[in-house]
Amino acid sequence: MSTAKQLRLGAFMRPVSIHTGAWRYPGAWPDANFNFAHLKQLAQTLERGRFDAFFMADHLAVLNMPVAALQRSHTVTSFEPFTLLSALAQHTRHIGLVATASTTFDEPFHIARRFASLDHLSEGRAGWNIVTTSNPDAALNFGRDDHMEHDERYARAREFHDVVTGLWDSWADDAFERDVESGRFFDPAKLHVLDHKGKYLSVRGPLHIARPVQGWPVIVQAGASEAGRQLAAETAEAVFAAPGTLAGARSLYADIKGRMRAIGRDPDHLKILPAAFVVVGDTAEEARAIRAKLDSLVHYDSAIASLSVALGHDASKFDPDGPLPDVPETNASQSGRARVIELARSENLTVRQLAQRLGGYGGLAFVGTAQTIADDMQEWLESEGCDGFNVMFPWLPGGLDAFVDKVVPELQRRGIFRREYEGRTLRENLGLPRPGNRFFAQN
Amino acid sequence: MSTAKQLRLGAFMRPVSIHTGAWRYPGAWPDANFNFAHLKQLAQTLERGRFDAFFMADHLAVLNMPVAALQRSHTVTSFEPFTLLSALAQHTRHIGLVATASTTFDEPFHIARRFASLDHLSEGRAGWNIVTTSNPDAALNFGRDDHMEHDERYARAREFHDVVTGLWDSWADDAFERDVESGRFFDPAKLHVLDHKGKYLSVRGPLHIARPVQGWPVIVQAGASEAGRQLAAETAEAVFAAPGTLAGARSLYADIKGRMRAIGRDPDHLKILPAAFVVVGDTAEEARAIRAKLDSLVHYDSAIASLSVALGHDASKFDPDGPLPDVPETNASQSGRARVIELARSENLTVRQLAQRLGGYGGLAFVGTAQTIADDMQEWLESEGCDGFNVMFPWLPGGLDAFVDKVVPELQRRGIFRREYEGRTLRENLGLPRPGNRFFAQN
Repeated sequence: MSTAKQLRLGAFMRPVSIHTGAWRYPGAWPDANFNFAHLKQLAQTLERGRFDAFFMADHLAVLNMPVAALQRSHTVTSFEPFTLLSALAQHTRHIGLVATASTTFDEPFHIARRFASLDHLSEGRAGWNIVTTSNPDAALNFGRDDHMEHDERYARAREFHDVVTGLWDSWADDAFERDVESGRFFDPAKLHVLDHKGKYLSVRGPLHIARPVQGWPVIVQAGASEAGRQLAAETAEAVFAAPGTLAGARSLYADIKGRMRAIGRDPDHLKILPAAFVVVGDTAEEARAIRAKLDSLVHYDSAIASLSVALGHDASKFDPDGPLPDVPETNASQSGRARVIELARSENLTVRQLAQRLGGYGGLAFVGTAQTIADDMQEWLESEGCDGFNVMFPWLPGGLDAFVDKVVPELQRRGIFRREYEGRTLRENLGLPRPGNRFFAQN
Repeated sequence: MSTAKQLRLGAFMRPVSIHTGAWRYPGAWPDANFNFAHLKQLAQTLERGRFDAFFMADHLAVLNMPVAALQRSHTVTSFEPFTLLSALAQHTRHIGLVATASTTFDEPFHIARRFASLDHLSEGRAGWNIVTTSNPDAALNFGRDDHMEHDERYARAREFHDVVTGLWDSWADDAFERDVESGRFFDPAKLHVLDHKGKYLSVRGPLHIARPVQGWPVIVQAGASEAGRQLAAETAEAVFAAPGTLAGARSLYADIKGRMRAIGRDPDHLKILPAAFVVVGDTAEEARAIRAKLDSLVHYDSAIASLSVALGHDASKFDPDGPLPDVPETNASQSGRARVIELARSENLTVRQLAQRLGGYGGLAFVGTAQTIADDMQEWLESEGCDGFNVMFPWLPGGLDAFVDKVVPELQRRGIFRREYEGRTLRENLGLPRPGNRFFAQN
């Protein structure tokens, strides 16, 4: 095994693909949202490619697009993440299973319980992507007229994290004796009642499920705002970043790892994984042609709606052929909004050009041959731009097959990606320590 | 196929068994709470026995027992139902998968989404056991100091049901066109935004998951109180009843089916399934000996705690050898409490005797040979005491194996239980119609 710094690879998945036009691509599976056999095949292909994790994209509302745009989108429906990942756990043995769960619209008792159960069912492969949910329409599905403000969402998220991890620690790892002779099922000295009373949450506990196999499922965080970076440095073990450039990535990497050092955390105990849209061709021309074909399948109604979502503002009234006008601040994700404005300004894009880019996939993309993609990934890894990537495939299953069959062997040949899984659990494969139980001495 | 009225059989399951002493029984699996391979075997055995449904018992808190009792109990921990049933769906093809979900401590948007997803993943085998959660300790895990009153819980449950079923109807069955040529993924005329604003709940919708395979997952209800019976008559398709005697069962049966007629529902569209603890022996003596052995394995600390839970009152200070004293009314399940008091009075039990009965299993029990058990079941079925049973096994796997290998063939021989599954979905196997979509004409 190589001693070079190793790349970690997550797959950020929607059943049909992240790309809005993908369902129309020749050979794609337009019905994948409710065709479990397809999802099973994708997960097994990812495991063949030695991916660290299957990362299920999620929302808590149909995206707030006008219906004219919405009807173009395959993203309006999907399986619910916990039920899907529990089912996929039965058809895979190594790959991690990462679900998104919102700290704004759910209860810590439910969240702690479901992740613990997924971790037991998968024998230690669960990960929790902590989100605060930036889509204001989600609030309306949960009895609230006004969406909680950004900074307040993050303050609640921090308390929510502490409650969930505290609930996971309800039982010592060796609490369950199951002594048939004495009739004692567990040792009461190894049960802790959390009894949390905080600013946002009041939760007694204990959790009625044994401590997860991994101690805690792996904690993933996505925010890139000031509040999001600090939450990540304090709590995350993987960061789903979305920098547009290597320079931006290196800055984020240095910032988060620096924040970790400042509070005494080992920077190796958090893996920064930028999202990367990867299009593989046998030649660079072929790769570019695949992307061009895909983008051409994005309906303009859908493209302009994606721009509206990203800005938190109706963009359909903008002049399509003019530059992006000034947009008032909203309660949408601040980091996402800033990125869109920066993209328009830096490439001098018209509204139409910007919308079409975003309607396909507007973030970081590696488009080329297995060689050039491996070059890019290696450069990012070795220049401290990242610890790996959350890969998004242009269309499914073909775009994933191409990555696994062409890019993965090239990464392995360079000694920067595993040929076999190192451990049994997601935590072991990512090289993360198993957290101690805050209430009981470690076994 | 016989034209006799057919018995429906659910299995009411805890991983180790319902019986508190079962984990100590020779040959039992004390570690089943977190051993998925065991659960998989149990589900497959139930499917071999042509059971209608695997019905997962659930709570939202560690039961409110003193620690001295709690430490005796294998029921303190378990898998979470949705994650477990989604995983079991991958290892079974016919059996229904029924999960309990609380209308008091969860959000209708989450509940609608998870059941819809389970229904898609299992190709139409999901059922929702609607409970209002009678354990007052659950409130403390969800930020509430006081538990909601009984009648208010049921009023909220009714509204919650209407919201969840409304969300399931967000999309017409044929909403998704996936027309690659035109780029239209769905027909906007076949999408309904619920926009519910009621006394307890405010939920906009739509749900971001296609209409369930069954239209709606099968609706199960368990309450036997006045409010519970009315809710069942209005909304349920299966009732998990708990009468202690055939006379009580016939009275409940006539009452609920009468309430259905009064509101214009077809009484055949609800299956009343009393819970029955079934102990099979090759002789009646052997069956009684199995039960006696099991009850002897219930620790007295645990027995007295079960009595406390049933009464919603600390029973540990009662005179163990005296009769059950008068107990003040509490916010606990009224039907459960009444049943316990009735059991003590009718059999003139001491507190100790009552506690030991409840600590093992205190409800309806059929203890005998395959012949006598089939006699009992047939009598209940044919005298309109029930439409079937929710069977509980004394210990696992042995008690289940005995039922499937001995009782099921006898029921089949009598022509009152299926030899093969009739349909593809839980709804089809139970003989229930597929609900129309309230917002769109049926296809």
